[in-house]
Amino acid sequence: MIIVLKPNFSEEQLQHICQKIEEMGFRYELSRGVQRTLLGVIGEEDELRNAPLKAIAGVEDVLSVLKPFKLASREFHEEDSVFELGHGVKIGGGSMALIAGPCAIEGPEILLEIAKEVKAAGANVLRGGAFKPRTSPYSFQGLGEEGLKILREVGDETKMPVVTEVMDPRQVDLIDQYTDILQVGARNMQNFNLLMEVGKTDKPVLLKRGMSATVQDLLMSAEYIIAHGNKQVILCERGIRSFDSSTRNLLDLAMVPNVKGLSHLPIVVDPSHATGRPDLIPSMALAAVAAGADGIHIEVHSCPEKAMSDGPQALLPNQFTELAKQIQELAQVFNKKVATTP
Amino acid sequence: MIIVLKPNFSEEQLQHICQKIEEMGFRYELSRGVQRTLLGVIGEEDELRNAPLKAIAGVEDVLSVLKPFKLASREFHEEDSVFELGHGVKIGGGSMALIAGPCAIEGPEILLEIAKEVKAAGANVLRGGAFKPRTSPYSFQGLGEEGLKILREVGDETKMPVVTEVMDPRQVDLIDQYTDILQVGARNMQNFNLLMEVGKTDKPVLLKRGMSATVQDLLMSAEYIIAHGNKQVILCERGIRSFDSSTRNLLDLAMVPNVKGLSHLPIVVDPSHATGRPDLIPSMALAAVAAGADGIHIEVHSCPEKAMSDGPQALLPNQFTELAKQIQELAQVFNKKVATTP
Amino acid sequence: MIIVLKPNFSEEQLQHICQKIEEMGFRYELSRGVQRTLLGVIGEEDELRNAPLKAIAGVEDVLSVLKPFKLASREFHEEDSVFELGHGVKIGGGSMALIAGPCAIEGPEILLEIAKEVKAAGANVLRGGAFKPRTSPYSFQGLGEEGLKILREVGDETKMPVVTEVMDPRQVDLIDQYTDILQVGARNMQNFNLLMEVGKTDKPVLLKRGMSATVQDLLMSAEYIIAHGNKQVILCERGIRSFDSSTRNLLDLAMVPNVKGLSHLPIVVDPSHATGRPDLIPSMALAAVAAGADGIHIEVHSCPEKAMSDGPQALLPNQFTELAKQIQELAQVFNKKVATTP
Amino acid sequence: MIIVLKPNFSEEQLQHICQKIEEMGFRYELSRGVQRTLLGVIGEEDELRNAPLKAIAGVEDVLSVLKPFKLASREFHEEDSVFELGHGVKIGGGSMALIAGPCAIEGPEILLEIAKEVKAAGANVLRGGAFKPRTSPYSFQGLGEEGLKILREVGDETKMPVVTEVMDPRQVDLIDQYTDILQVGARNMQNFNLLMEVGKTDKPVLLKRGMSATVQDLLMSAEYIIAHGNKQVILCERGIRSFDSSTRNLLDLAMVPNVKGLSHLPIVVDPSHATGRPDLIPSMALAAVAAGADGIHIEVHSCPEKAMSDGPQALLPNQFTELAKQIQELAQVFNKKVATTP
Repeated sequence: MIIVLKPNFSEEQLQHICQKIEEMGFRYELSRGVQRTLLGVIGEEDELRNAPLKAIAGVEDVLSVLKPFKLASREFHEEDSVFELGHGVKIGGGSMALIAGPCAIEGPEILLEIAKEVKAAGANVLRGGAFKPRTSPYSFQGLGEEGLKILREVGDETKMPVVTEVMDPRQVDLIDQYTDILQVGARNMQNFNLLMEVGKTDKPVLLKRGMSATVQDLLMSAEYIIAHGNKQVILCERGIRSFDSSTRNLLDLAMVPNVKGLSHLPIVVDPSHATGRPDLIPSMALAAVAAGADGIHIEVHSCPEKAMSDGPQALLPNQFTELAKQIQELAQVFNKKVATTP
Repeated sequence: MIIVLKPNFSEEQLQHICQKIEEMGFRYELSRGVQRTLLGVIGEEDELRNAPLKAIAGVEDVLSVLKPFKLASREFHEEDSVFELGHGVKIGGGSMALIAGPCAIEGPEILLEIAKEVKAAGANVLRGGAFKPRTSPYSFQGLGEEGLKILREVGDETKMPVVTEVMDPRQVDLIDQYTDILQVGARNMQNFNLLMEVGKTDKPVLLKRGMSATVQDLLMSAEYIIAHGNKQVILCERGIRSFDSSTRNLLDLAMVPNVKGLSHLPIVVDPSHATGRPDLIPSMALAAVAAGADGIHIEVHSCPEKAMSDGPQALLPNQFTELAKQIQELAQVFNKKVATTP
Repeated sequence: MIIVLKPNFSEEQLQHICQKIEEMGFRYELSRGVQRTLLGVIGEEDELRNAPLKAIAGVEDVLSVLKPFKLASREFHEEDSVFELGHGVKIGGGSMALIAGPCAIEGPEILLEIAKEVKAAGANVLRGGAFKPRTSPYSFQGLGEEGLKILREVGDETKMPVVTEVMDPRQVDLIDQYTDILQVGARNMQNFNLLMEVGKTDKPVLLKRGMSATVQDLLMSAEYIIAHGNKQVILCERGIRSFDSSTRNLLDLAMVPNVKGLSHLPIVVDPSHATGRPDLIPSMALAAVAAGADGIHIEVHSCPEKAMSDGPQALLPNQFTELAKQIQELAQVFNKKVATTP
Repeated sequence: MIIVLKPNFSEEQLQHICQKIEEMGFRYELSRGVQRTLLGVIGEEDELRNAPLKAIAGVEDVLSVLKPFKLASREFHEEDSVFELGHGVKIGGGSMALIAGPCAIEGPEILLEIAKEVKAAGANVLRGGAFKPRTSPYSFQGLGEEGLKILREVGDETKMPVVTEVMDPRQVDLIDQYTDILQVGARNMQNFNLLMEVGKTDKPVLLKRGMSATVQDLLMSAEYIIAHGNKQVILCERGIRSFDSSTRNLLDLAMVPNVKGLSHLPIVVDPSHATGRPDLIPSMALAAVAAGADGIHIEVHSCPEKAMSDGPQALLPNQFTELAKQIQELAQVFNKKVATTP
């Protein structure tokens, strides 16, 4: 950590700062430059970060040298992490997940119909929401436990691991009984108590990036989960807020190689929520494969105009079938493989 | 709601759309323009909003005419809402809250010292965090229930209503026993289950704007709380994410008159979190008064360089005393009053 | 265009509005809904757009139905535009441009060296800046006309068309004598007088997206150039401003298919300026191909640590050679071809 | 400047880096920390900034210690700058400018009518556009030189200094003959050739902040003008791009005290362009005074529904009259004065 002193600092302030640093148990090196004087503070960066050095009189700025995450970082764990998702499906290290399904679980028949179609097309994880975070209290909020049961049954019948969202620390135990992967949504990426609870389970967690989260924020939230005992964190890019309303969110594909440089965790891209536009989803799914994603997440509905949530952004099963074929072919070009389920 | 048809729509598609609209129980009016054909759909806008009209073939766009919130809107409730906060302090309709205190509760002596100083300066609500949302799992997470007890005792001794943050639906009952006002933080603005739980209490809720929330998003979250039974929602502007890192967040003061046009709810401005810089807090607090805010929220610490959370952005008690005097004088210019506590 | 009336409009206001609409030469249709009354205004959308309808008393909102660009739109020109860039290189309709070279032209030897290397690797357009837009008045501003001469000579010797930036309407004639393609930089995307001047030339224009420009803003700037006589506009995505400083800008790859749906113009992606990080450039270049880009623009320098501008974001020639090979192979997967120069 | 080495740097790389630094004529200090090794580079920060240190192998990051602007900085010039605008009107150091007038000059009668009304209300600078930057090539582009003549005549008749926008380096001489203050618009904030040209005049320049410009970017553009000889730069905040479309732009009032800490230059706030909404302009104008602005810039039109540009955001003369009175009163509270014209 580097402390930059104000141009007009007093020697008394300098002495006070140095004393403070020593009181906290750190060492320092003083460097008097042409225009600014610096103090290089030497010690565990994590402890330094929590010390309010910037509040001391005479300090102009405090520059951090290290990233604040550790367990999620590639410095700490050099190899790509690979996780088992169920039914032989792996993610990471060359294995790709192809996650598909409707936004919300609406009933057993319709989910089974969609599940069969996406499986036939090559999807290897089934998604569906039972508890739905909706901006409006007047929108459909999901079927709850009833939905979880349907998801489990359809997953078993079609032999696909399933993923569903958990919104509340109180739901973790319940949802854990039914699902193979726990999803934490974008709006809950910094719901720290929820992160702690999913950190106590032994299920992989699909952690979606918040709408205004930096790459570092996302990795800090992953750090929360790992620090509470669960190493199986799968990151997910699903678009961030921007000034251009022509797409629902702004897909940040550069974050894929950016994250892969910083972290060993696998990363999935969700072009459905990122764009909100079926006409853009296929090319963004393919671009995500080229960018190095470890998985693609697509919403599919057999009748979008009847869907109870986010219908307009779902692909039709035949559109998904065509896209899945292209994803599989492109994955091979990049020496990756979309695993098949039994 | 207005449906815009694609330039090359077929008459068959048009018929299908009209039939769908009638099936949903709505009426429509067809308008064939020079370049586009439109359908004005007539019916309850809330129900229309949930219908996936955009997913129907031949539809180019669906334009909304009404705002999606109702209980929070000024159309629904014309007069400014006024809430009682305790010890005779009101907010709204000309009464201003001046909320001050440390970021985190660190112990009884230090909180009492700060509370006495901010009260003497004119603050009428005491703030302090017992459960702290921290980006890093390695940062100080707050004293928990121990902190709540300290807050309650200090509030009683100094005769000030108190406000503290609730981060988890499981904490609502506990915190409700100790506090006068429940705060929902920026990161939890769309933690819908938490909104529902605070919506079931009878305490005023200080709802902070999320870092990438639009004004409408904030009002939709207020709508959640009101729809679950609690009308006492106090909105809070605390800055949004921007591309300029010279301030911690970007304070959006235009949202004050913007919200007051749309809603009857009182609104507080928090320049401490918005700027993260003590040198900018005083002028932003005064600008907030001029913008029409119903309250100002300031972090104060008697020794920022020892603070366990957000020290660098806290004002010193003597800085706060000077600012509080200016706020009170400026409030009078705008025919408002900062209530005094007993 | 649709006029939404305020909930409490008076019949007198309505009459005034209708009269205004008729005075402007438009027709209207009145639609009294359950909660709002609407007026569908029928006429040329372009003329309507310039009428200040929103300033009339009683009007709550004015909703636009059509896009404000015409010559740049695919509705107006259904086929992909294809432009000749020189030496047999085409862009658009399956032909890809691979534009490479240093940020700034620093001298004849170094440019020739880089040009030979990028040509050998497969680049088909040579880039280099002679007039440089620099944030600081104290940074290297380019070699000016001397640089243009060097660029022309090196382009002729290596038989590659060349592109260089024009920053000032007064430079257009001069630069036009030396270059094959005129580049308008991100900071000048809404320098309308410059757009008009390049619109009067007969050279293709590489128009870079502004840092806070929407897709529509970019297409409006293209419209300026086309409306002044030059149909050969090549769009370029080079990242937009965002809140995450871990990359220089935020690459918006969804804008590629988004633009291709709205417009017939070819579009190039520049991952060098978008990310500012050599470690992210290769995967973003490949993702751009998968997203449907008609060209890729990469900065290459044989000694980045000596470069006079933007050295840290340049690829080394051997890194470029490897990437160019991957781009060419991936282009084939998408039925596209990077043309070779003689 | 501080160089952070990669965790796995080699001693050979370190030697190469140190040699490079010495070749460039700088000194360094080596600091081997627990987790990272640093090099403090000592020398003129401006020269250091132009050296591509980050491109050297083994370098992880380069941290800047100083701000890159000098002539515009308060370190360089401690006192507030005060400029004469004409007819005895000053800006800076307690003197406030109240700039008002229509967006575009439409004719002599209408401008004279508006000018008389805003002067009577207390405005001391008249604004009006003769050359208009318009997003669409099909919108009204201004009256050109004809408009300048009208502006000059009306300014002389009403004894107010006048300000008008210059969009093109070729227009600077012409516009300089007619106006008292040259305005550089938001879209041209980084049109560096235009900045250089206005830097050669002796007229005050009103420099508007670009839509995605940081505070530092704005000060760097001011630096350009000053470095070319013209010290009279007046900064202007007019809102930046954000994700919330409920206002035209996002007014950043914290930049007022932020700029005043960094720079000696006066700063004006333009709530008309920032919000685009007449209902929000008055409170944002007053908040700007409270934030410490040296001037307020308001668009006024006597018949917004007939205005040829930006009618819907203009105040009516009677609305302006009321607001001007409040601005003058509030200025006094903050020990400032809106100068009167003869």
